[in-house]
Amino acid sequence: MSSSAADPKRPLRQGSAAKRTAIARAAIDVFVRDGYARTSVDVIAAEAGVSKRTIYDYYGDKRRLFLSVIEETTEAEVEVFQELLRRTFDGAQSVEQALMDLGLAFATAVARSPQRSAIMRLLIGEAAHFPELVRGWRPVAAVQRSLADRLADQADRALLDIPDPLEAAEHFGVLVTGAVNTRSLFGTVHVADEEIERLAASGVRAFLRAYGPARDRA
Amino acid sequence: MSSSAADPKRPLRQGSAAKRTAIARAAIDVFVRDGYARTSVDVIAAEAGVSKRTIYDYYGDKRRLFLSVIEETTEAEVEVFQELLRRTFDGAQSVEQALMDLGLAFATAVARSPQRSAIMRLLIGEAAHFPELVRGWRPVAAVQRSLADRLADQADRALLDIPDPLEAAEHFGVLVTGAVNTRSLFGTVHVADEEIERLAASGVRAFLRAYGPARDRA
Repeated sequence: MSSSAADPKRPLRQGSAAKRTAIARAAIDVFVRDGYARTSVDVIAAEAGVSKRTIYDYYGDKRRLFLSVIEETTEAEVEVFQELLRRTFDGAQSVEQALMDLGLAFATAVARSPQRSAIMRLLIGEAAHFPELVRGWRPVAAVQRSLADRLADQADRALLDIPDPLEAAEHFGVLVTGAVNTRSLFGTVHVADEEIERLAASGVRAFLRAYGPARDRA
Repeated sequence: MSSSAADPKRPLRQGSAAKRTAIARAAIDVFVRDGYARTSVDVIAAEAGVSKRTIYDYYGDKRRLFLSVIEETTEAEVEVFQELLRRTFDGAQSVEQALMDLGLAFATAVARSPQRSAIMRLLIGEAAHFPELVRGWRPVAAVQRSLADRLADQADRALLDIPDPLEAAEHFGVLVTGAVNTRSLFGTVHVADEEIERLAASGVRAFLRAYGPARDRA
């Protein structure tokens, strides 16, 4: 490791946006493929087409590079989910249909996004070595808050019965993704389309039994 | 690596039970502390007080050692949970009380069992490198089946309304542990006792709203 990488106080360079993007993409690919401990900054530099010195100038050492790219990637996910929430609730015929569509989209994202799953596994596997990674969960909280707002809207219109929207949003998330996460071993084992659909629908049905309007639950 | 470790066809020795236990304990400690890639069989041998050759004779190479000790450890967990199920349901005043006790026990196990959490993180983090690790999830399925039987009993006595006991058991598991897993980043971040209690109770309440007897859900 060069001495520039070893000095955590050395100011980092913003550098060129194109080079940053190339480094971040290569870093995610290599960290995900090889795991943190097995990853070499030399390999990232080669795959990004930059010098190792450029990586150290932009990001500091391997540890800070890892934390930066994990944070950038998970935050980019939030926008995808916010857009999904807008599309699902604004386009649906009924709250049941919106929740079914959303549940299937969440479960499919868990089972069918290899890079997203690989990042989750990396986050979980390295959590004990990187306490700062708890920040990686902030995007989950942001998505939950947006879903909670949508659920509260539906409750105001008496289409759902939601005592605590944030709790209900969290319960929706675990009901529609928990079983798929287990079956797919966090995205590493293939789960058939019909099984994803069955598990998502089962989670949404449980959610509607718990939080559907009172008259439907009698 | 010695040539004995490199030959996957070489028969393994059962060896002495005391040495097997010492190796398995040291291996779990070192794998959990250092992660799979960082772990050295030399370190495990030193911590177990055996020679590296003994480890290769008993378990084969590092990969097979890892798979064996993960499997042995997760299977030992099943008995703990089965006993917990028996104690909870046989001793409770009501099904609501049994589920509250069980939910709190599950959530506490997630947040307050450092070795169990570390093994889970290791399993998830290494899943892509070890497709065989999907076997590590079999104990989860065994616990779910036992819980499903208990829920079906309660439904037969009209104390719960459970269309599909296995689905309901899986929903119970994710409702009471999902939020604690997220908050504690799979057991690496401290979650206060009151927060564990709040999250478990919230999951059990949602479960009872979904699966409580029909008259209570009106």
